[in-house]
Amino acid sequence: MENNFDKDNIKIIKEKGITYPKGFQAAGINCGIRPMRKDLALIYSEQVAQAASLFTQNQFKAAPLWVTEENLARSNGKILAILVNSGIANACTGEKGLQDAWETVRYVSEYLNIKPEYVAVASTGKIGEFLPLEKMKSGIKKAVKQLSIQGGEEAAEAILTTDTRKKEIAISVNLNGKEFRIGGIAKGSGMIHPNMATMLSFITTDLAIQSNLLQEALREVTAQTFNMISVDGDTSTNDMVILMANGLAGNNIITEKKEDYRLFLAALKLVTEYLAKEIARDGEGATKLIETEVQHALSDSDAEKAAKAVIDSLLVKTAIYGHDPNWGRILAAVGYSGAQLEIEKVDLYLKEKIVSDGQPIPFSIDIVRKYLIESPEIKIVVDLKIGHGKATAWGCDLTHEYVNINTKYN
Amino acid sequence: MENNFDKDNIKIIKEKGITYPKGFQAAGINCGIRPMRKDLALIYSEQVAQAASLFTQNQFKAAPLWVTEENLARSNGKILAILVNSGIANACTGEKGLQDAWETVRYVSEYLNIKPEYVAVASTGKIGEFLPLEKMKSGIKKAVKQLSIQGGEEAAEAILTTDTRKKEIAISVNLNGKEFRIGGIAKGSGMIHPNMATMLSFITTDLAIQSNLLQEALREVTAQTFNMISVDGDTSTNDMVILMANGLAGNNIITEKKEDYRLFLAALKLVTEYLAKEIARDGEGATKLIETEVQHALSDSDAEKAAKAVIDSLLVKTAIYGHDPNWGRILAAVGYSGAQLEIEKVDLYLKEKIVSDGQPIPFSIDIVRKYLIESPEIKIVVDLKIGHGKATAWGCDLTHEYVNINTKYN
Repeated sequence: MENNFDKDNIKIIKEKGITYPKGFQAAGINCGIRPMRKDLALIYSEQVAQAASLFTQNQFKAAPLWVTEENLARSNGKILAILVNSGIANACTGEKGLQDAWETVRYVSEYLNIKPEYVAVASTGKIGEFLPLEKMKSGIKKAVKQLSIQGGEEAAEAILTTDTRKKEIAISVNLNGKEFRIGGIAKGSGMIHPNMATMLSFITTDLAIQSNLLQEALREVTAQTFNMISVDGDTSTNDMVILMANGLAGNNIITEKKEDYRLFLAALKLVTEYLAKEIARDGEGATKLIETEVQHALSDSDAEKAAKAVIDSLLVKTAIYGHDPNWGRILAAVGYSGAQLEIEKVDLYLKEKIVSDGQPIPFSIDIVRKYLIESPEIKIVVDLKIGHGKATAWGCDLTHEYVNINTKYN
Repeated sequence: MENNFDKDNIKIIKEKGITYPKGFQAAGINCGIRPMRKDLALIYSEQVAQAASLFTQNQFKAAPLWVTEENLARSNGKILAILVNSGIANACTGEKGLQDAWETVRYVSEYLNIKPEYVAVASTGKIGEFLPLEKMKSGIKKAVKQLSIQGGEEAAEAILTTDTRKKEIAISVNLNGKEFRIGGIAKGSGMIHPNMATMLSFITTDLAIQSNLLQEALREVTAQTFNMISVDGDTSTNDMVILMANGLAGNNIITEKKEDYRLFLAALKLVTEYLAKEIARDGEGATKLIETEVQHALSDSDAEKAAKAVIDSLLVKTAIYGHDPNWGRILAAVGYSGAQLEIEKVDLYLKEKIVSDGQPIPFSIDIVRKYLIESPEIKIVVDLKIGHGKATAWGCDLTHEYVNINTKYN
């Protein structure tokens, strides 16, 4: 996907999120699952929206994912509301977990007075605990009352767990003189290695677009953004992304893969790439965002393998944390990635060109070290020089604080 | 492979290693690659031995591996000597690296007065640096003079890098009233995630056995031992295992897969499993050995995937370091491993049974915590209850010291 159209058509709107597109309301409240912080988010579209969705490939898929998939199947992909709780994942909870998730669907349906099949549910938090239904019932009632077009930020806060900051973005797109908008929120931090699906992300748009194209667009951008990040290599049981399109922008509905569709795709990719990078940057204990770009691989899929191997490598992650330009660790990761290589052709850039044709070349260690120390984003470029495949992956460094967070979390 | 024959036929010999089998000599010296510690090992068989070997699948395979593979092809698998240096990996060193490796072959050939094609070479250490040929030439001369049947321990020391202790084992096997012996050494510590091959390990035996069976035995036990360990998920450029069999035990040569062969296979597996576990136990910064046994998978290959996913999971590794029985992280790893599951059947044991049929059951948190705190070896058993496949994998915890070692190694 090339972003070679006029960039002037897309504008990022600061401090706005999922309620920026027309006809979306949200709320984020504390319902008592977690002490002292928001733990329940509700997202609502005033008009029935078309939903595209992707779910984790982890076989211990959590109860809310099963429920949401079944509802989307029943409603033919139509949706009005998404309920999200943080603190408890409702995963590995068996039949009772499923019943509990259905019960929360009923609460939302009742208080919003909408059909149950128009409700999606998502959870994130500790595995193996049951949802506190009474607390959630009161919480849902309260959230319904608080729904507003200012509620996007509170919803962005309510879905977080060990994240240190909220992740939200809104953009405005000029489509042949008519505006449409996209807003998105996400949570990440740990157990982040999305596979085909993603961690939690909810995206809204007022665009009118045919449902099959909406799903195809979400799948394409997710493959290039959410599925190209990793914090710890662990694929969660609760990954889910839902994209709601309610058509209130008033555009002529997009039904073909022409210029309009490509503009939407580019805009959507901007949103998901921003959220994906924010998740990688805010990985547990992270001090640096690591971006690895692989160029001229034999195929895009080979480039993906190589880029992901580099961001997944513990030795690369610790070297970056230690501000060391240890290119040998980067090449070793590319070497075991499974991507086809001609090793005597591989070039590597880390601020400067430091490997040429598979071998180290002299470079200014001072400049590279200064870059590793001072820059909050570290860019690694690997040029395989054998084809036209390319990919970018994002990760973060592995730090003492990562170990702290994951040993002292009780 | 079942070890259901009489265990009395196999005896572990303490404090002995690769020079315990008849006709093997070794030396370990300092040649000046590394300050103040042994960095050059030489292993020698008095009689031409048959060699079985396996090499890394990393495409940035280091120069000595190419040279050794070529020599073994030229000599039809015959071997007399193995030269190993630590400190410099001679990986990503291009044409000069290859020439240098060949030059060290010539030195060994000259000072031992043997054909060059009977020499194998191996290296471990930093990627991208060239071997100091003059130092190695003098070192090889010195090592040849020091070769002795007491030299096994010094060789075991000379091949180490960040390892905190040497890894060696020797066993005596009673084969129909006749003794044969096996000795082995290994180095591990970091960049340990063998794929089809292994980190460095050298194994000697005085058994007489046909070369194709020797290779088959090495491949089989490696798949079940060295290839089932991981310290950090990073597959090295220099992994190599060589098994030398010189036939001096005087047994009737093994030419068929009958009882004699199975006894050898069991004995060899004992040696490689011991060395593999020692490598996992001595992983960089490790405080615990983690053993994960997966039972009743649909296939052995599925069991391997699940067992490896658990020992590779950073969240499991940090939970063990933090002495927390976080079974949710273990199940999540099994869930994304790619192994077929019926999640409502999965049982999990960690000292006690803590998950039954995919859901948590009450267990004594005090007993399990005490086990996690006090036991140097943590055993996790996952019972999938859907087939006959089984596998065991070994890893270690992820600690603050791991991060220290890999950020402050300069």
